[in-house]
Amino acid sequence: MNKQLLLEKRPEGLPDKDTWRLVTSPIPAPNEGEVLIQHHYISLDPAMRGWMRDRKSYVPPVEIGEVMRAGAIGKVIKSNNNPNFNEGDCIVSWGGVQEYEITNGENCYKVDDALAPMPKYLGTLGMPGMTAYFGILEVGKIKEGDIVLVSGAAGAVGSLVGQIAKLKGCTVIGIAGGKQKCDYLLNELGFDAAIDYKSEDLMEALHEKCPKGIDVYFDNVGGDILNAALTKLRLNARIVICGAISQYNNKNDVVGPSNYLSLLVNRATMQGMVVLDYANNYDKAAQEMGMWMMQGKLKSREDIYEGIENFYDTFLRLFSGEKMGKLILKVI
Amino acid sequence: MNKQLLLEKRPEGLPDKDTWRLVTSPIPAPNEGEVLIQHHYISLDPAMRGWMRDRKSYVPPVEIGEVMRAGAIGKVIKSNNNPNFNEGDCIVSWGGVQEYEITNGENCYKVDDALAPMPKYLGTLGMPGMTAYFGILEVGKIKEGDIVLVSGAAGAVGSLVGQIAKLKGCTVIGIAGGKQKCDYLLNELGFDAAIDYKSEDLMEALHEKCPKGIDVYFDNVGGDILNAALTKLRLNARIVICGAISQYNNKNDVVGPSNYLSLLVNRATMQGMVVLDYANNYDKAAQEMGMWMMQGKLKSREDIYEGIENFYDTFLRLFSGEKMGKLILKVI
Repeated sequence: MNKQLLLEKRPEGLPDKDTWRLVTSPIPAPNEGEVLIQHHYISLDPAMRGWMRDRKSYVPPVEIGEVMRAGAIGKVIKSNNNPNFNEGDCIVSWGGVQEYEITNGENCYKVDDALAPMPKYLGTLGMPGMTAYFGILEVGKIKEGDIVLVSGAAGAVGSLVGQIAKLKGCTVIGIAGGKQKCDYLLNELGFDAAIDYKSEDLMEALHEKCPKGIDVYFDNVGGDILNAALTKLRLNARIVICGAISQYNNKNDVVGPSNYLSLLVNRATMQGMVVLDYANNYDKAAQEMGMWMMQGKLKSREDIYEGIENFYDTFLRLFSGEKMGKLILKVI
Repeated sequence: MNKQLLLEKRPEGLPDKDTWRLVTSPIPAPNEGEVLIQHHYISLDPAMRGWMRDRKSYVPPVEIGEVMRAGAIGKVIKSNNNPNFNEGDCIVSWGGVQEYEITNGENCYKVDDALAPMPKYLGTLGMPGMTAYFGILEVGKIKEGDIVLVSGAAGAVGSLVGQIAKLKGCTVIGIAGGKQKCDYLLNELGFDAAIDYKSEDLMEALHEKCPKGIDVYFDNVGGDILNAALTKLRLNARIVICGAISQYNNKNDVVGPSNYLSLLVNRATMQGMVVLDYANNYDKAAQEMGMWMMQGKLKSREDIYEGIENFYDTFLRLFSGEKMGKLILKVI
């Protein structure tokens, strides 16, 4: 049988448990040209909250009654003459929160799970890795000597952003919630400074740890932290708008950055990004990221929970911050 | 005697009459190397409100007791061996709100008042013109076929932004306050559409007049209009942050744009600009603007009031909108 998590209603604010419904149905058989994939791991990402909203965005919303959209990695267990994928192949897909999927192979790609464990393909070598890579290099346009501030710094994207910036010769300050995460940034990832927004006064900490201001701010969180970062911009600074996790569950309007006129004073740029735009260059990026991983220059953690039944409690960790690194659900 | 307007206190909100003090003192004599300029016209600009604030910005604040900073144009009536300027020369300077100034010539430049009337050198051929030119071309990066939205569209900068965009083959929609201004945009300046934010529902008007969205938004006003424009961005849109006149007199925080995540969804860019950065290229720009003026392709109006005693009432027109085009004070 196939367990599937269907979107049951559109949440207002933080999703409650009735937002999804777990259903069980027979494992479907692939039609001509299709494959049946058994998922091993499902990726849990902040962006999923956005996909539940019924509004125009960079992808269509998940419809009520549909399987909840999510990245997944698994193995082909049956191929019905699919030209690209064979039984046993390890596949990354948008397979959704379910144990099995049928696909014609569109938007899927094959990876080698002998080279890296499967969860890495949902993290450093997957969407979060690509987001970090293109976000900080192409949108942030970092160069040696830049001072780079990153929020959500212990998260799947932020932790890679900071490490890539260090590899490129930047000074890196990370903002994260809690001592454990800040210690991780400083002691394991080699950040130059860390700010615990849960226990420190943000403005004071920024003054102390970014005394010369910042050239690049990579924003995963929005809200007060974005607004505080705006006060520290240097001339021609760049802000990368990658996400706004502090705002995703707002019942009212998003809080806009009241300090945005710092962009004018400092001739600075705030630019939004969606990783899908860089799909043509994923290969090159993943090669470089993989090389850095092998050389021990790029570290990452995956925080893995088990069982599709535990989707809800696990998903909420994205917003409570009770996780360390890339959040993943193991479903086999 | 020289009448001078001194900054008396830092205003909160809309400046009241006691914000400045008019004083009279003997006309000073230029020291060796200096010139004495008699001002003919003084430029009144929204940026002046920002210069009164005691905070870090792109120029130092005007200090209490100092002559209020302003652009001015006038004639050298005495030169004490200044190497660059002679008696009779027509000079654009940061001479401030006063009838006479003494200067060593720094940050001054000579213009030919036989080629264009003096007020044009404070408008189309001065800072507003340079702001429009570099803002829409270099920051807005317009190209043929772009849909361009501009606020403060009947103002000194906005009216030129729209006309330059038309010259470059764009579709141009202007936002202005009142029927008279909107008629001016449509009938005299050749805009494709105009929105009267004082009488129309802004969102409805944007839906109707920008049905395909916008590629560039040139923002002079901030606030609700910036926030509404964010909802209409097309992919890779650019927002030029030139000013935020709706926010300059706020007693509380500036209102930030709550729709800023449209930058993410649309991979769009919001970039601040300060015209002073383009000083090395003013000559080239002024040549091109002058040529367009001569050819009748670039129209402008100056709204000229008389007498330094009337500075206060005239200055407030910047914020009430009771003016048409470039606001100027005639002081001779």
